[in-house]
Amino acid sequence: MDDDDASGSTNSYPAFQDVNHMVIFGFGFFLTFLKRYGFSSTGFNLLIIVLGVQCSVLIEDLLVLLLQREYKDGLQRITKAAVSMTAVVISTGAVLGKANPVQLILMAVVEIIAFHMSRSINTTFLQVSDNISMMHVHLFGAYFGLAVSSHFSEPSPRTEKNASTPKSDLLSMLGTLFLWVFWPSFNSVLLVEEKTKAIYNTYFALAVSAVTAFVLSLLTAKDGKFRMTDIHSAVLAGGVTVGYAAHIIEYPWIAMILGLLASGTAVLGSYCLQRCLHPALKIHDTSGIHFTFGLPGVLGALAQVVLLVLKDWTKSPRLDYLVMIPIGAFCLTISVALITGFLTGVIVNLKLFKTIPVSKYFEDQFYWEFPHLAVGF
Amino acid sequence: MDDDDASGSTNSYPAFQDVNHMVIFGFGFFLTFLKRYGFSSTGFNLLIIVLGVQCSVLIEDLLVLLLQREYKDGLQRITKAAVSMTAVVISTGAVLGKANPVQLILMAVVEIIAFHMSRSINTTFLQVSDNISMMHVHLFGAYFGLAVSSHFSEPSPRTEKNASTPKSDLLSMLGTLFLWVFWPSFNSVLLVEEKTKAIYNTYFALAVSAVTAFVLSLLTAKDGKFRMTDIHSAVLAGGVTVGYAAHIIEYPWIAMILGLLASGTAVLGSYCLQRCLHPALKIHDTSGIHFTFGLPGVLGALAQVVLLVLKDWTKSPRLDYLVMIPIGAFCLTISVALITGFLTGVIVNLKLFKTIPVSKYFEDQFYWEFPHLAVGF
Amino acid sequence: MDDDDASGSTNSYPAFQDVNHMVIFGFGFFLTFLKRYGFSSTGFNLLIIVLGVQCSVLIEDLLVLLLQREYKDGLQRITKAAVSMTAVVISTGAVLGKANPVQLILMAVVEIIAFHMSRSINTTFLQVSDNISMMHVHLFGAYFGLAVSSHFSEPSPRTEKNASTPKSDLLSMLGTLFLWVFWPSFNSVLLVEEKTKAIYNTYFALAVSAVTAFVLSLLTAKDGKFRMTDIHSAVLAGGVTVGYAAHIIEYPWIAMILGLLASGTAVLGSYCLQRCLHPALKIHDTSGIHFTFGLPGVLGALAQVVLLVLKDWTKSPRLDYLVMIPIGAFCLTISVALITGFLTGVIVNLKLFKTIPVSKYFEDQFYWEFPHLAVGF
Repeated sequence: MDDDDASGSTNSYPAFQDVNHMVIFGFGFFLTFLKRYGFSSTGFNLLIIVLGVQCSVLIEDLLVLLLQREYKDGLQRITKAAVSMTAVVISTGAVLGKANPVQLILMAVVEIIAFHMSRSINTTFLQVSDNISMMHVHLFGAYFGLAVSSHFSEPSPRTEKNASTPKSDLLSMLGTLFLWVFWPSFNSVLLVEEKTKAIYNTYFALAVSAVTAFVLSLLTAKDGKFRMTDIHSAVLAGGVTVGYAAHIIEYPWIAMILGLLASGTAVLGSYCLQRCLHPALKIHDTSGIHFTFGLPGVLGALAQVVLLVLKDWTKSPRLDYLVMIPIGAFCLTISVALITGFLTGVIVNLKLFKTIPVSKYFEDQFYWEFPHLAVGF
Repeated sequence: MDDDDASGSTNSYPAFQDVNHMVIFGFGFFLTFLKRYGFSSTGFNLLIIVLGVQCSVLIEDLLVLLLQREYKDGLQRITKAAVSMTAVVISTGAVLGKANPVQLILMAVVEIIAFHMSRSINTTFLQVSDNISMMHVHLFGAYFGLAVSSHFSEPSPRTEKNASTPKSDLLSMLGTLFLWVFWPSFNSVLLVEEKTKAIYNTYFALAVSAVTAFVLSLLTAKDGKFRMTDIHSAVLAGGVTVGYAAHIIEYPWIAMILGLLASGTAVLGSYCLQRCLHPALKIHDTSGIHFTFGLPGVLGALAQVVLLVLKDWTKSPRLDYLVMIPIGAFCLTISVALITGFLTGVIVNLKLFKTIPVSKYFEDQFYWEFPHLAVGF
Repeated sequence: MDDDDASGSTNSYPAFQDVNHMVIFGFGFFLTFLKRYGFSSTGFNLLIIVLGVQCSVLIEDLLVLLLQREYKDGLQRITKAAVSMTAVVISTGAVLGKANPVQLILMAVVEIIAFHMSRSINTTFLQVSDNISMMHVHLFGAYFGLAVSSHFSEPSPRTEKNASTPKSDLLSMLGTLFLWVFWPSFNSVLLVEEKTKAIYNTYFALAVSAVTAFVLSLLTAKDGKFRMTDIHSAVLAGGVTVGYAAHIIEYPWIAMILGLLASGTAVLGSYCLQRCLHPALKIHDTSGIHFTFGLPGVLGALAQVVLLVLKDWTKSPRLDYLVMIPIGAFCLTISVALITGFLTGVIVNLKLFKTIPVSKYFEDQFYWEFPHLAVGF
């Protein structure tokens, strides 16, 4: 087992590499499903991640200075920064194609500060462990993103551009498979012990999640066909849900049940949310982050509480205390995410930031030069 | 050098990761060469692998229970399961585009059970080492797949759908390069010592294989052009062939000769099989697994015998015994593969499983919703 | 910290894997931006790399034999060979689409011999460390490639084929992101200590490089849009520049400044070179390797000198000596690259090698069979 010192040495480089690969490459291509937005999906993803990581490292330095925390070595700092950036990447999924780069950058900076604040409160006052407080990235990212996206105009429903082509869906599948393969690394990267158990449990949750995704996609479709969007989101849901508890689950079948529930939540959530809740709240969630990361994250937070109770049922005299801590952390994270997300949504939609018109949504040509188009002339 | 205990600790996670990446991502995209079958190639590949891994872990547990074997830790079990799944992935290559998901799942489950059975006989009665018995995956997968595919109707030769486009070939190249890069991990993942030697030899076999693929592709073509399908299959052949003996080869030039022969077998095999043998036997092998994995596997098994004889020529008084073991294991594996494959072919073509009509072969739209197609209306 | 012995054991396999992945997969797809040259970009890249690695290992063996050097173990030899091949891959970028496979192979063999010669002089006579002498690959590759490409006819400026499509640019982005993610491995692979520091500094240089690339691309464009080609080249420039000094930089902000300068050099260099210098010298540089690898390499070599001077300003009595060594190594490398490149350019353009006509430039169909095209008939 690595101890805390060793995890900062060269040994943890592969772990950092995996997470870095996930956020830069995996999420970059995960978001390329829009047919005319591939450049922006991958390009802006790179841009906000590198900005966010630098910002995140600066904040950590500031906290070290202000709170007299112990100084971490370099690799560990950028690993944590890269994991934190997942929150921002998830949020950008909700406004994909609707926000311009300046809005995205502002959003990334505000979000990363808010997430650090929320995480800092969790670890300092609620004594939540470092790993668990980091696993709130999915929740935070999803609800921050939804709150921001509620301020953006909805695209006209008949627009052709808010759609995928078989080619773009296949590229998105490439990103999804990358994320799927690397997810066990993500869930175990900050653990100093029980790494192998976390990897093992995450793998099984993901495996069941993938099977369930196919089955439910078939069952909820009218004509007995698979829906690619369901597969994209539901195969990953298991990894999100099991993140909170991957290191404390004793038997793989528990992880498998969580994977099943997570995938079910994602597919059925997609069905319900897109028909009922989102239109009512006037939220347009381009990449479906609510049911890919939000709901499975909520499920995971609940599962963590249940598992803790079941485990320490007899041992602990202070069961209420045991239960209140994770629930408190959960509520705090969601609240901070929604409030700061709402405020960010207001700010980035000021005229100052040149919001783009609805007719230019989901359009690479608005941001990128296309010499290719001129070739024919 | 890792010992058996250490290989189950976090140290072996990168090795598992590599194999997992290969089967999920590498093979998934390796099979995307059909122009209208990209979703199914990558999607169904994910589906059967996760099902198969779970099934494989269950079987191992059962064997532990029944045969009182020693209990392996989690990571090692899923690593072995992922390696075993290569057999299934190879088999599905033969019926790619012709079998529906239910048929694929049934085939995967039967095959993984048959492979475990065959491997169990090999290790228990023939005292074949764990690593070598696992390297039979390529042979088993190829001949099982061919036996199954002999029960599927041949697609009409004039169908446009059983073809690739430059784009789909390029995506397939992406998968091929992934497999190529990770192959040394595959050949060394189960070794507990001599890992570096196996990696080194595999790399050289693959390198020579790639060069030979280009040269032979040029020489066998009529108009002096390269054929992409030759490249796809022949660059990997060296890795398959050298798998059996990668850890016992003393000098890289031996591995290089094996790579040369393997690549030659693959390109010339492709030439002969597709013109003579397959039409005669009425076998239609969509991905050419016979010459990509089957023939190089046979060559590797023979090479292993020759190398063993050359090495222990003088030392061993029981040369016949030394030779009979690998030949016995080889014959057993092929026989089990052909017989169970043949039976599986009969079963999955029962009317019960809704076999798809020849006109719907190689068609994503038969299984997947394509909202993209409705956009224009 | 690994010592020299340990770096040859299984521990260094992941490092080799990363470099191998970069040269085979990363560079292969980095070069797929031409719309009709995807097969050749990835295929020929694989071909020349495997040939070059074998050639490189043979040369090392010869040097061991001739110069009585100590014998390195296998993995370390192929790792070094793969790193050296970066020079060849960069050079082929300059003649991409203009040279046929025979010319490429000849070029690869000559270049790898010349690079080994240059590196051997550097390490033997100038006492340059192994790592630094290897980091000259970018410089060597770029100027060798430019010298060779000066002998190829310029494509007619109105040709449609020397262009990218959105799809091919996206595939190229895939390769670029791969290279970006793995670059810290590249800069640290040959270090035996200070690995973590090199990784950390490289990451920050790359991060700032990426941000600067976006900003400058916007500022230099007429209509306030990003240019994909700028992004492709400039995001990597930081990694190239910081390569020489990644292990001696004490504070990340120094690496960040280098990243900024590198990216600036790449974007502005692209602007100036393509308008002024290259047309004047009649050089056509298909992939823009001059500003992606050449200029940032020069900058890195200068930065190394400045950093060495600043660091040992007071300590060393022989400052002139300290400065002369890296400058000497730099001049030697560039000179050898230009001279051997020029000669190679003359040789490969002999009629013997069937140079391809300008009208067939950038055309996959000249080398590859396209059965797809016949399908419609």
